[in-house]
Amino acid sequence: VTAETSDLYRRLLGAADMNAAFSDASLLAAALEFEAALAEAEAECAVIPADAARVIAEVARGFRPDAAALAEAGARAGTLAIPLVGALTGAVKARDAGAAAWVHFGSTSQDLADTALVLMLREAARLLDDDLDRAETACAILEETHRGSVMLSRTLMQPAPPTTFGFRAGGWGAAIGAARAGLRRASVEAVRLQFGGAAGTLGAFGRDGGRVAAAVGRRLGLAVPERPWHTARGELVMFGAAAGVAVGALAKIARDVTLLMQYEIGEVFEPTGEGRGGSSAMPHKRNPSGSMVALAAQTRVPGLVASLLAGMVQELDRGVGGWQGEWLTLPQIFEAAGGAAHAMAEVLEGLDVRPERMRANLDAALGLVYSERVSLRLAGVLGRQEAKDAVAAACKAVAATGRPLAEMLAEDGRVAGALGADGIAELTRPEGYLGLADY
Amino acid sequence: VTAETSDLYRRLLGAADMNAAFSDASLLAAALEFEAALAEAEAECAVIPADAARVIAEVARGFRPDAAALAEAGARAGTLAIPLVGALTGAVKARDAGAAAWVHFGSTSQDLADTALVLMLREAARLLDDDLDRAETACAILEETHRGSVMLSRTLMQPAPPTTFGFRAGGWGAAIGAARAGLRRASVEAVRLQFGGAAGTLGAFGRDGGRVAAAVGRRLGLAVPERPWHTARGELVMFGAAAGVAVGALAKIARDVTLLMQYEIGEVFEPTGEGRGGSSAMPHKRNPSGSMVALAAQTRVPGLVASLLAGMVQELDRGVGGWQGEWLTLPQIFEAAGGAAHAMAEVLEGLDVRPERMRANLDAALGLVYSERVSLRLAGVLGRQEAKDAVAAACKAVAATGRPLAEMLAEDGRVAGALGADGIAELTRPEGYLGLADY
Amino acid sequence: VTAETSDLYRRLLGAADMNAAFSDASLLAAALEFEAALAEAEAECAVIPADAARVIAEVARGFRPDAAALAEAGARAGTLAIPLVGALTGAVKARDAGAAAWVHFGSTSQDLADTALVLMLREAARLLDDDLDRAETACAILEETHRGSVMLSRTLMQPAPPTTFGFRAGGWGAAIGAARAGLRRASVEAVRLQFGGAAGTLGAFGRDGGRVAAAVGRRLGLAVPERPWHTARGELVMFGAAAGVAVGALAKIARDVTLLMQYEIGEVFEPTGEGRGGSSAMPHKRNPSGSMVALAAQTRVPGLVASLLAGMVQELDRGVGGWQGEWLTLPQIFEAAGGAAHAMAEVLEGLDVRPERMRANLDAALGLVYSERVSLRLAGVLGRQEAKDAVAAACKAVAATGRPLAEMLAEDGRVAGALGADGIAELTRPEGYLGLADY
Amino acid sequence: VTAETSDLYRRLLGAADMNAAFSDASLLAAALEFEAALAEAEAECAVIPADAARVIAEVARGFRPDAAALAEAGARAGTLAIPLVGALTGAVKARDAGAAAWVHFGSTSQDLADTALVLMLREAARLLDDDLDRAETACAILEETHRGSVMLSRTLMQPAPPTTFGFRAGGWGAAIGAARAGLRRASVEAVRLQFGGAAGTLGAFGRDGGRVAAAVGRRLGLAVPERPWHTARGELVMFGAAAGVAVGALAKIARDVTLLMQYEIGEVFEPTGEGRGGSSAMPHKRNPSGSMVALAAQTRVPGLVASLLAGMVQELDRGVGGWQGEWLTLPQIFEAAGGAAHAMAEVLEGLDVRPERMRANLDAALGLVYSERVSLRLAGVLGRQEAKDAVAAACKAVAATGRPLAEMLAEDGRVAGALGADGIAELTRPEGYLGLADY
Repeated sequence: VTAETSDLYRRLLGAADMNAAFSDASLLAAALEFEAALAEAEAECAVIPADAARVIAEVARGFRPDAAALAEAGARAGTLAIPLVGALTGAVKARDAGAAAWVHFGSTSQDLADTALVLMLREAARLLDDDLDRAETACAILEETHRGSVMLSRTLMQPAPPTTFGFRAGGWGAAIGAARAGLRRASVEAVRLQFGGAAGTLGAFGRDGGRVAAAVGRRLGLAVPERPWHTARGELVMFGAAAGVAVGALAKIARDVTLLMQYEIGEVFEPTGEGRGGSSAMPHKRNPSGSMVALAAQTRVPGLVASLLAGMVQELDRGVGGWQGEWLTLPQIFEAAGGAAHAMAEVLEGLDVRPERMRANLDAALGLVYSERVSLRLAGVLGRQEAKDAVAAACKAVAATGRPLAEMLAEDGRVAGALGADGIAELTRPEGYLGLADY
Repeated sequence: VTAETSDLYRRLLGAADMNAAFSDASLLAAALEFEAALAEAEAECAVIPADAARVIAEVARGFRPDAAALAEAGARAGTLAIPLVGALTGAVKARDAGAAAWVHFGSTSQDLADTALVLMLREAARLLDDDLDRAETACAILEETHRGSVMLSRTLMQPAPPTTFGFRAGGWGAAIGAARAGLRRASVEAVRLQFGGAAGTLGAFGRDGGRVAAAVGRRLGLAVPERPWHTARGELVMFGAAAGVAVGALAKIARDVTLLMQYEIGEVFEPTGEGRGGSSAMPHKRNPSGSMVALAAQTRVPGLVASLLAGMVQELDRGVGGWQGEWLTLPQIFEAAGGAAHAMAEVLEGLDVRPERMRANLDAALGLVYSERVSLRLAGVLGRQEAKDAVAAACKAVAATGRPLAEMLAEDGRVAGALGADGIAELTRPEGYLGLADY
Repeated sequence: VTAETSDLYRRLLGAADMNAAFSDASLLAAALEFEAALAEAEAECAVIPADAARVIAEVARGFRPDAAALAEAGARAGTLAIPLVGALTGAVKARDAGAAAWVHFGSTSQDLADTALVLMLREAARLLDDDLDRAETACAILEETHRGSVMLSRTLMQPAPPTTFGFRAGGWGAAIGAARAGLRRASVEAVRLQFGGAAGTLGAFGRDGGRVAAAVGRRLGLAVPERPWHTARGELVMFGAAAGVAVGALAKIARDVTLLMQYEIGEVFEPTGEGRGGSSAMPHKRNPSGSMVALAAQTRVPGLVASLLAGMVQELDRGVGGWQGEWLTLPQIFEAAGGAAHAMAEVLEGLDVRPERMRANLDAALGLVYSERVSLRLAGVLGRQEAKDAVAAACKAVAATGRPLAEMLAEDGRVAGALGADGIAELTRPEGYLGLADY
Repeated sequence: VTAETSDLYRRLLGAADMNAAFSDASLLAAALEFEAALAEAEAECAVIPADAARVIAEVARGFRPDAAALAEAGARAGTLAIPLVGALTGAVKARDAGAAAWVHFGSTSQDLADTALVLMLREAARLLDDDLDRAETACAILEETHRGSVMLSRTLMQPAPPTTFGFRAGGWGAAIGAARAGLRRASVEAVRLQFGGAAGTLGAFGRDGGRVAAAVGRRLGLAVPERPWHTARGELVMFGAAAGVAVGALAKIARDVTLLMQYEIGEVFEPTGEGRGGSSAMPHKRNPSGSMVALAAQTRVPGLVASLLAGMVQELDRGVGGWQGEWLTLPQIFEAAGGAAHAMAEVLEGLDVRPERMRANLDAALGLVYSERVSLRLAGVLGRQEAKDAVAAACKAVAATGRPLAEMLAEDGRVAGALGADGIAELTRPEGYLGLADY
């Protein structure tokens, strides 16, 4: 614990591997890898001497700069690149004074920062996809296991016609799958080399800029866009928005879990485990601590995506403020998403499902949720208005007596006459009324 | 002007056609078209009588309900569908009492509201794309016309190495093109039929739900998703985010225009025209009134996209609050985008470009923007540190004397010796230093 | 229903009177009242002829301009003031050509727009406070009525030690009260005359600017700030944030109501009433339609407040975009807040509270919520660890057997020995464990 | 540089002292101080043994737990308090087994987390106020120094009537002063003890809860609210919003500085200094690196405030997600604000102001900015329409000829006749037209 680091809550609401993807160590490694690839590519294109490139690349890849000193110098300079390139140049010079002249040749601060960001995002996307994959797979298993687990649907948090837990879990998984697809589409657009030099024109390379860019991109495994995107941040923003949508899909599941896990409902529970979801005050408590992480992410991420969008107004050839805001906002979005995905993967993989409580809760709703169904069938016999009135009266009687709808309907002569005892029985059980959930 | 309507500022910051796409008239027409298509599709699938469907469809398509009364009743009900379906049922009943029983059969409020929304968004996307197309085309023409219009690049709002206005306009156009592609991708995912019935299972149709859904979708020209998306809003959110990115791309251009249009810079001007961009106090003023619209949209839209994302946490089978918030947020995003796109299409189509001022401003920068270039070349001869020192000294002399860099370099013996007079001249003019901007 | 107006959803999620406070009619009336007061104040200060002022004020107060035409012209001009002042000048000229020269004398667009906004906000604040007052009063009555209505507290949506519904309602009311106080504080700062003229210096008045400003403010009942706030929007933003906090306080209550109103919990219900909270598909449903309005507001408002904050970066003496974005954002915030306050006032005034269900739900929790209490008492006798272990074992037994904690504790010899039968009984009932909720 | 910490960009966009206020070390110290004060207060109220309290307080104040281990355990538990209280209990036990039973007695996780947050915020508010004070004072000095430095005002980024730099700096300072006042008001409301126990009722203390709370608050120097605010976050949100407004006020200044610092305008410059505002590519550049920090904060903070507001919907007696999101959001807001305030204090204290460029730019505007003034005066003689036409014609002539307005007016017979040569001269110089800026 030093006076500077602040990682406790970041860890509580995040995932260790995703946090590591955006650590200072990762940032510096990515930035130095850019410098190494840049030197090698420039040598390949005969822009700088091959010997110099070899030294630069080797030194860069082994360089472990003093992050605290860089932070202080960077805070003065307003950019990480100046002190980092300075320190790297010093280290190269110590090995080969001539090579030092070629460090960062023809590049600019934003090339380094953006490309490092993109390299970190590539790893982040991989980690996020892994946990989303786990969550989606867990949903598929739940769907398969529980296609017959009939339960209440609940609209506006009130009982509604029956569904199955399998169908619900399938919907959860489909939303995760759609979010993954969105992330992949966005990633293809966003994870690209940034390389434009001082003015975004690669002017230092004359007509060779495109060739050098292609060589840098190839070495880093990054696509090379037609032109630098120093001030065109739309692809990056869509990537962040796609992560935000993933958080939303996870948080929707988390909200459902917290609702279904209420003591009075008790239809699903988060997995237990050593140290999970306890309470500092109440030994008995089983808190939805995984869902909490996803819901905390959802509390934070919409605003963070707004910050990303707000930064799009970049002044002319390099923005003042809009660009730099991304340095913290994008990692925060992906760390929140990583935390949510990791937590919900664990929740879904270990979800404790109680089909018997689902059925009991459905029965306890006394058949009121079949009222629409009865009403529609009755309308064909009695006409819409009379059907509606009869069903409404029966529902009222249910509320007053606490007896099930089927009994109340049977006691209404018109209804009993219209539907018969078998008809009433058939219309007030979930079977045959599950629609898409019956598959 | 009634006490209820509030459209003045909506019009000032919007575009007439886009606003119309989200008017109450459009909303009601879309909702009634859904009811008509629903009845027809249900008849096609033999779920309701063909005669009833014919009457319902005909009445629905000609129905002009009292919007003010619907608004009041809807405010009590918490949904538009209840009073609208009620009013439609009444109108159908007046024609054919039997048919009335089949209005809205097996559907639910959210089916109507979401499908109507999607139909409006389809039209909105078309309108937005039209204006973005105009803007993109205008950029292409500017790019073509001004490939030779050399100008300062400006990074962090300070002079930087030369670029061309054509390259800049090309970058603007590329960002618009990317935003359009993003909107199209998002639209394909988002513009889909909503049809799930009370529980999202189409339970009222037994095993026929899928067939009915397909028939409704075909009639409305809407894709039919595998399952209803009552509580899976990710695709809609990405559509809104894509519109937000389009606004960001337009606002970046707008910011550039406002910067370049400053009196002391004067490199481009918004088009003039009857009643455009005046001042209530100052007859001489030429305000960037089109760019203002885009920048006002950019002020608003990031927060609106955050609101969309925030709504993703939908409780179980129909959300309380998250869903309903979209009713206002999505139209507001697209209206802002429509206003921005329309305004910037006009700005770009009529942009008044001043290449001579661009060149003059470049010259007035006294060659300081060539310092990196000179430094890189000099480093090859004198070594990096000595080169850097010499150039820094020359820059300082420029600042002190107000004379151009070329002269200062020539007066430095080492530099003059290393580069020669021709070398200095070549290194301190834009030609050969435009890189990607020279094409 | 014209092609332009879009008020259906605005009404569904809003309150009629608050919407009216931001209608075009209100906007034009406020703007014209500013022009009238301006003319009168300038006459009072002998800046313009008294006869001219009389005509201007009279014409302005009776003027009913064509809003649609103003909207079109304003959209071209980028400001409402230019066409409105133009139309007013025309109307004055028709009465007195000489007077026309003095319309809007020395003022500027932003003076008119900001002062009109502030006049609308003053009324909006009054309306909002009225509904918040209703809600706060309703909470006070609930608190008084239900101080003895013991219920479960629920933390992270899981049962926790007992509280009372009165204490809960008191907390709701206190949060509303704090939000009202915040709104009043913010209102005092924000509701001020805007008057600065073209450059924000009142230059047209020479040394008389301050006197004229004071006179305008007096006539409008507005405080006059030390200097114009054309580009200092902090007070306005804090006002919007305070409205956002009011929405948050209301939405917290709404969330609680939706949770407590779940079928399986059933501790409170929103009031019923003609057309309230029904379902288009299910006759039996009793939806939380008032809480829905508050939660929809909460979905929207955080992003809208972000938009307000984003607009604070105003360029030099009048912003491009940041200022203009407020035109729509501030009304949207207050309309959302007005809808939420109105809806929750109705919910709270008519809330149907079920103390017997509260008690039944508490009993159904089997005493687990007393575990902390037992543990703390036991720790004094057995030591912390042993106490903790014993209570944990008893809780496990409760879960396994479905029998209450008191019985499980009694069956544990150590515990029974340490606490005695009376001790166990005393520790496992709510009385004496209500703390602050027992008053 | 470990794989976990991520502080480089936090430092680049922040201030060292503010970051330290939210470091893990500060968090743990604050949380442990809460535990110490709690024990002492409980002993004072005879709730726990005095000896135990003495041990607990002493151990807590000297305790240096392993932050990394706490982070891992906390991530499992979903709360920092459980592992921290566990570790503290262990440390106390090592000293005095009996005392260990009384650690954290009657309290709950949220008491610890919220009170620790509030203690950190109190320090953060002090640091922020210090830097805002520096910035405000610097503005006051600039105002005093430059009351005679006449310059163009610029509205919508176009030249407008003259003002002074002193008046401008005074406006900057006034906005900072207002933001400070807002922060102080918000701080008084927000910086309060949190103490409610498991259910927010202090039930473990029976009727003694209030007394214990008062004693804890007194020891921590914190106000004690009437009731716990576990789920009433409005005061905290307003505090965050007030910090957001401070950022907005600073960013407005930063935007102005970046605009005035453009090469072609050159009216003010950020201070230079070792390592400040350089460019990795261009030795000559003088970047607005301080303003950049403030503008980056402004890009981020509106969204962060939205996240805070979004968290207000807390479920019943302890929220799931809404509360926990604050753990990262509030520090991020204050760190951004601290960075902005520190950067702008430095910018303003060292601002390099060029009155001669201001005057030159005013003159270069050729008198067009006097057009309103001339028009208003002329209207009294020629009538409004004729005056307007004459001035518009003269402005057109200025644009066409590049000669000043005074000359163009003099060449128009009507105007020359109406105003005389002296009149024209008087109306086309800044003196007498500065209004409030002339003081």
